[in-house]
Amino acid sequence: MTSPETDIPIAIDGDRLWATLEASAQIGSIPPSGLARLALSASDRQMRDLFVSWCREAGLAVRVDRIGNIFARRAGRGGDVAPVMIGSHLDTQVHGGRFDGILGVLAALEVVRALNDADVHTSRPVDIVCWTDEEGARFRRSMLGSSVFTGELELTQALLLTDDDGVTVGDALTEIGYVGEAGVPGPPPHAYLELHIEQNSILDESDVDVGIVDSSYPTYILAVHFEGRTAHAGPTPMAKRHDALTGAARAIVAIDEITRRHGPEAKSSTSSIRVWPNRPAIVSSSVDLRCNICHPDDHVLDGIKREIERAVEAAAAASNVTGHVVPAARFGDAGFDSRVVAALDAAAATAGIPSMRIAAQAGHDAFAIARIAPTAMVFCPCRDGISHHPDEDVDYARVLPSIAVLARAAVAVADGPELG
Amino acid sequence: MTSPETDIPIAIDGDRLWATLEASAQIGSIPPSGLARLALSASDRQMRDLFVSWCREAGLAVRVDRIGNIFARRAGRGGDVAPVMIGSHLDTQVHGGRFDGILGVLAALEVVRALNDADVHTSRPVDIVCWTDEEGARFRRSMLGSSVFTGELELTQALLLTDDDGVTVGDALTEIGYVGEAGVPGPPPHAYLELHIEQNSILDESDVDVGIVDSSYPTYILAVHFEGRTAHAGPTPMAKRHDALTGAARAIVAIDEITRRHGPEAKSSTSSIRVWPNRPAIVSSSVDLRCNICHPDDHVLDGIKREIERAVEAAAAASNVTGHVVPAARFGDAGFDSRVVAALDAAAATAGIPSMRIAAQAGHDAFAIARIAPTAMVFCPCRDGISHHPDEDVDYARVLPSIAVLARAAVAVADGPELG
Repeated sequence: MTSPETDIPIAIDGDRLWATLEASAQIGSIPPSGLARLALSASDRQMRDLFVSWCREAGLAVRVDRIGNIFARRAGRGGDVAPVMIGSHLDTQVHGGRFDGILGVLAALEVVRALNDADVHTSRPVDIVCWTDEEGARFRRSMLGSSVFTGELELTQALLLTDDDGVTVGDALTEIGYVGEAGVPGPPPHAYLELHIEQNSILDESDVDVGIVDSSYPTYILAVHFEGRTAHAGPTPMAKRHDALTGAARAIVAIDEITRRHGPEAKSSTSSIRVWPNRPAIVSSSVDLRCNICHPDDHVLDGIKREIERAVEAAAAASNVTGHVVPAARFGDAGFDSRVVAALDAAAATAGIPSMRIAAQAGHDAFAIARIAPTAMVFCPCRDGISHHPDEDVDYARVLPSIAVLARAAVAVADGPELG
Repeated sequence: MTSPETDIPIAIDGDRLWATLEASAQIGSIPPSGLARLALSASDRQMRDLFVSWCREAGLAVRVDRIGNIFARRAGRGGDVAPVMIGSHLDTQVHGGRFDGILGVLAALEVVRALNDADVHTSRPVDIVCWTDEEGARFRRSMLGSSVFTGELELTQALLLTDDDGVTVGDALTEIGYVGEAGVPGPPPHAYLELHIEQNSILDESDVDVGIVDSSYPTYILAVHFEGRTAHAGPTPMAKRHDALTGAARAIVAIDEITRRHGPEAKSSTSSIRVWPNRPAIVSSSVDLRCNICHPDDHVLDGIKREIERAVEAAAAASNVTGHVVPAARFGDAGFDSRVVAALDAAAATAGIPSMRIAAQAGHDAFAIARIAPTAMVFCPCRDGISHHPDEDVDYARVLPSIAVLARAAVAVADGPELG
């Protein structure tokens, strides 16, 4: 392939990158191929320590902030100005794969190593970032570190979140030794770039290896609450039961059916449920569900949400309980920055790498950072779109092009004009 | 009212009984009227200690067995032969009332106090029994102590059951100081009698205060398992999801609808659910439900069960997961002993107290003991049939007649012929 402009002489070393991924895959592994490396766990500490040692070997200055986000800086020629930040997260789901998030951090490390090899020095610093607890699998709050960094989530509030054993984020952070000195909210970077596996099969089913993410699916996290009344699950006449679990079950089915009626672009799952008392022989009196729904068109999404609200009321009424929906969070509305997206396009074109525009459908730290800095993402293919499962996999050869694009875009943005 | 036979001069002292109930209601209370006194908890220990002190004051010899069942013996004239055993349990649900089980133990204590007052001495001993953990609210195994006593449940197996915090029955029993010397399985009593609130509103809505329990509703506890596959709850196409929670929800709704189609005598509730991973942004891969179904006619019950099995398969198929039903337990088949029932009938007639025959619809320790000894139960009314809820209540005046019947039947059986 020929390049329309003169390419920067950066060579991504696939073998070196795979070695870091293989080392990561040993820490918190679910044999044969998965990972369960929950945020702020002993295995998270082990991975962070390894990552920090790699950063130091690469000559980077490592800084940690109050919520445990790690920043590893490659100095710029222009002194200590706002950096180009590239990274993702090293924590996983309880039943996750070895690439989700991790690839973004280790690709950033490979970019910096490649810049070192090529002796390329950017005007602005390049910071590799590892955000604390993107998955929310342990403390039930996704994008924790990046949201504290932007100020969207208060540090004090974040530190008080608890896991299933009642351990707070604050205690867990202290336990693993990652309470840093850097203050939060942190200083907005010049720009933020994040590489991630796509988590769907659009790229995998195409012959294009690089997805330049210019938009995302607006997503609601809905909290749905049902309130009934405990009673004996044996003798109590059915007509006198106020069974919150049955109401919730009707709603879960309705949410699934409503979503499917809106075609393949509409997606939803009720991924968590909390029932009380949840014991033998007692009718449930309260149920809390968490459900996420997304659709690329926010008008359609709002329509789906209204249908779900009506369905929850109907489900509750059918079970003689009360039910209501509270939108607990919404993300995916913050558009990515057209100039950073253009830099990615240009990087792909310069390197002669075919790319396509694509929309993000999952939550990412990039969504949080997009609120405070010009941001965009790069996706690479993952096999069959599988993620949040140990079978998550990639074709290594199809990952390298996106890292080559990331490296070139990072340099271009680090050397480019103010985006402010 | 006149008595057809000469009545025994036993006087139940309502005020004395209510005082014990009021004292019990202070231990583990949910204000204003409920109780959360889980088995082998600190409040269970406090209640047991109080109960034991009352038994000792009444001159009874207290014995505890290896699973913590408490036996308080009023000696018989005929020496240490098999006793008439009367009692129930002192533990409650997490959101329970002050009468379920407790009334049966304290009524037994009142019977013994009344026998003491009247200087009535029976041929066989009368044992008051407090069974360990009838509710199963903490360790998820109902009728724990009585099932170990009969040998249906192995002691070693029972001691290894854990609560939500991983505490074993064995450790909890040691912690509260109720690991006794008496061996299990224990010696079958001559006969077993248990008084309980009805937990339905048949007596409450009638003008009869005493229900003589001659039968019970056959009941299945069904374990229902669904197996899907984790995936990202965002981008994964709906057609590629294998969402175990949606499958379970379809089944919960179907179980409710099937039960209602079988008329008011059919009852069911899915009272517990366990979901994995049950976290944000990840599709559920496995769900376990516990559901109980009962119907007085065991052919109808088996038909309902078959319908549920088919519905579970259909629900699983509709959600692209697998699902199957395993009957985890069945109870309510052991008929009560006609001679003990006749003794209760005769006691009511002798005392001139109107009674009616009634069927038990909930699980009781009496079901366990019926496997090894002649057994029957007496029910008293509870307001609106409410139980397993803090609003559980009784009209004290309507409780006394059942205790008068219990006392007279206990004496008659203790002085009666061998039932072997």
